[in-house]
Amino acid sequence: MKIGVLGGGQLGRMMAIAGYPLGIEFGLYDPTQDSCGGQVARLYNAPFEVTDELKKFVDEHDVFTYEFENVPLELAEYIVQRKPLYPGKDALYYSQHRLREKQLFVDLGVPVTRFSKVDDRVSLLDAATEVGIPFILKTTTLGYDGKGQYRVTSEAELSELADKLFPEMGEACQETSYAGVNEYIAEAFVNFTRELSIISVRDQVGNCVFYSPAENDHRDGILHLSVAPAPNLSDEKLANLQGYAQKLLEKLNYVGVLSIEFFETEDGLVVNEFAPRVHNSGHWSMEGCVTGQFENHIRAIAGLPLGVTDNRSVSAMYNLVGHDVDRSAMAMHDVHVHWYGKDIKPKRKVGHVNILADDYLQLQQKIDDVDALVK
Amino acid sequence: MKIGVLGGGQLGRMMAIAGYPLGIEFGLYDPTQDSCGGQVARLYNAPFEVTDELKKFVDEHDVFTYEFENVPLELAEYIVQRKPLYPGKDALYYSQHRLREKQLFVDLGVPVTRFSKVDDRVSLLDAATEVGIPFILKTTTLGYDGKGQYRVTSEAELSELADKLFPEMGEACQETSYAGVNEYIAEAFVNFTRELSIISVRDQVGNCVFYSPAENDHRDGILHLSVAPAPNLSDEKLANLQGYAQKLLEKLNYVGVLSIEFFETEDGLVVNEFAPRVHNSGHWSMEGCVTGQFENHIRAIAGLPLGVTDNRSVSAMYNLVGHDVDRSAMAMHDVHVHWYGKDIKPKRKVGHVNILADDYLQLQQKIDDVDALVK
Repeated sequence: MKIGVLGGGQLGRMMAIAGYPLGIEFGLYDPTQDSCGGQVARLYNAPFEVTDELKKFVDEHDVFTYEFENVPLELAEYIVQRKPLYPGKDALYYSQHRLREKQLFVDLGVPVTRFSKVDDRVSLLDAATEVGIPFILKTTTLGYDGKGQYRVTSEAELSELADKLFPEMGEACQETSYAGVNEYIAEAFVNFTRELSIISVRDQVGNCVFYSPAENDHRDGILHLSVAPAPNLSDEKLANLQGYAQKLLEKLNYVGVLSIEFFETEDGLVVNEFAPRVHNSGHWSMEGCVTGQFENHIRAIAGLPLGVTDNRSVSAMYNLVGHDVDRSAMAMHDVHVHWYGKDIKPKRKVGHVNILADDYLQLQQKIDDVDALVK
Repeated sequence: MKIGVLGGGQLGRMMAIAGYPLGIEFGLYDPTQDSCGGQVARLYNAPFEVTDELKKFVDEHDVFTYEFENVPLELAEYIVQRKPLYPGKDALYYSQHRLREKQLFVDLGVPVTRFSKVDDRVSLLDAATEVGIPFILKTTTLGYDGKGQYRVTSEAELSELADKLFPEMGEACQETSYAGVNEYIAEAFVNFTRELSIISVRDQVGNCVFYSPAENDHRDGILHLSVAPAPNLSDEKLANLQGYAQKLLEKLNYVGVLSIEFFETEDGLVVNEFAPRVHNSGHWSMEGCVTGQFENHIRAIAGLPLGVTDNRSVSAMYNLVGHDVDRSAMAMHDVHVHWYGKDIKPKRKVGHVNILADDYLQLQQKIDDVDALVK
């Protein structure tokens, strides 16, 4: 079997590495010529359009998946008409658009924060009343790591933002828009105590397995650390997280790994967003679980039985963002450095360190030791 | 860093898969066009000679290693004069020649069975007296899995073999020789209770780590099952096995993974042979240990710190030889199937199954369950 992955970054790269021991071959498709996945699998290098190279890529593989949710729908459509694509087009349709995604969660009974659609000056001002200040305004499509987002914490900031985005008679201003997107979602601020994420997997006959939810910490808007299982998570919340994930998996007739982020608040869980793919907050599972997220994603889309997701111990994933770690970390007990084969640049994810320990106390000590070796 | 591996079979393949997470790139060199390693890394396809393709292969990689011990010495010499080659030429010099290898063990104080050189009719008949009947005659070079070997269990068989190999005035007969090799070693039969092997690793600054010795069972002369740690191994024998391995590592100024096979007899340990490479009897370490043999081999030759070799549990490696295993084995707890991407043919190693368990009793049950799924 040959699997084609849309996207040749570190996620596609790690899918290939995890799938090779299963006897599966991989090709990656990416517009960037030096995509790091190209170091471990054949890279088809062309724009994300229905190019001749894409047609060749589709011809030469049996099953398709993607490493990022912004795959153009027409490209997904081209593939779906010819070969299996997992998790599929529905997952893309919802995850590419923050309003559709939010409404889907509402329909499934998954708790969301108050939100409102904004596409002109009037709806922006109305949103401030409906969801309340403070709120955050996000483009409905594109944007990540805080890009295309605005915080509104006062009436003054609201007027300022209205003038910036919709200055002329309430019309959208192309120059100040992010990536040309003029449709927004206003979301009420969530006062959360921590972020949790859950990785789940569904196979082609409907079996679902779940990884332990992780607790995630960010630095400068980028994931810094995930700890799993999330400490002090009540059985009730664990059951809720799995239940919400299962609803979404079934609603989307999903095949593969699904990631959902939640906020834990004093009033309970509130969903943030989902990603129809393997996720940075699940990288700890590579050594931390009997079967890692990458392998289980490949098993699911290849029609193979899912692997057991039991934890080997408590685990952490420490992201290497714009920094490397000293090689001496590799000699630490049950510390596993994964490098993505990328040059180091500010804010760029160049690798991660998986850390296993007997208990949370030892885990924290090892995290501190790794932290001291990051340079 | 780019590592070039001589040989593109499953061992080279698994080296690449283990090295990719370390950010290392791989190329494999193999005369066979459809070598299974070519599915996961670039394959340089040409004979094992100093070809133009070999020169290109050497130019395009930084460090070299091999997946089999019969690398022609002139080819090793070509590389050594230009780039680092690990474990190096010395390891090949001894492991390619059974007499040199045996003498090396004698010099290092590692117990060997009685042996004698045979290269004509007279020395064959003398050997029968020196080492005693029964004995086994092996070509000094080449041969594996019983090829190029003869058992002599009586005077009649001795005469027969003498007539076959050295019929004319004691001269060697080319037609009946194996692969044109006319030099032999006669080895006294070893009445062993079991075969043990130990995998060890030495890095570029002389640090050595050891894996738990494994107990190996063969079927039709091919490794069938390895169990690690070898059950009921005395502390004294464990210390001896590690001590012998360390002597050999240091004598050869070795870098990388070294495998040594021993017979356990009523009178103690007797060495069988060593292989200067990752070894089938160490495959259980991929999931069974904190750091597997393939990753540690790559760490060693890449100049990185060695990883911890502690066991995660008790483990077994079940070889898939000429048979496949039902996909349902993948759903078993802590059972990991590794396929090599090869077509199934009689006696061909097409994959292996790593099995982890809490204790030997559970391990045996899981081995039996896997066995029932092999078809």
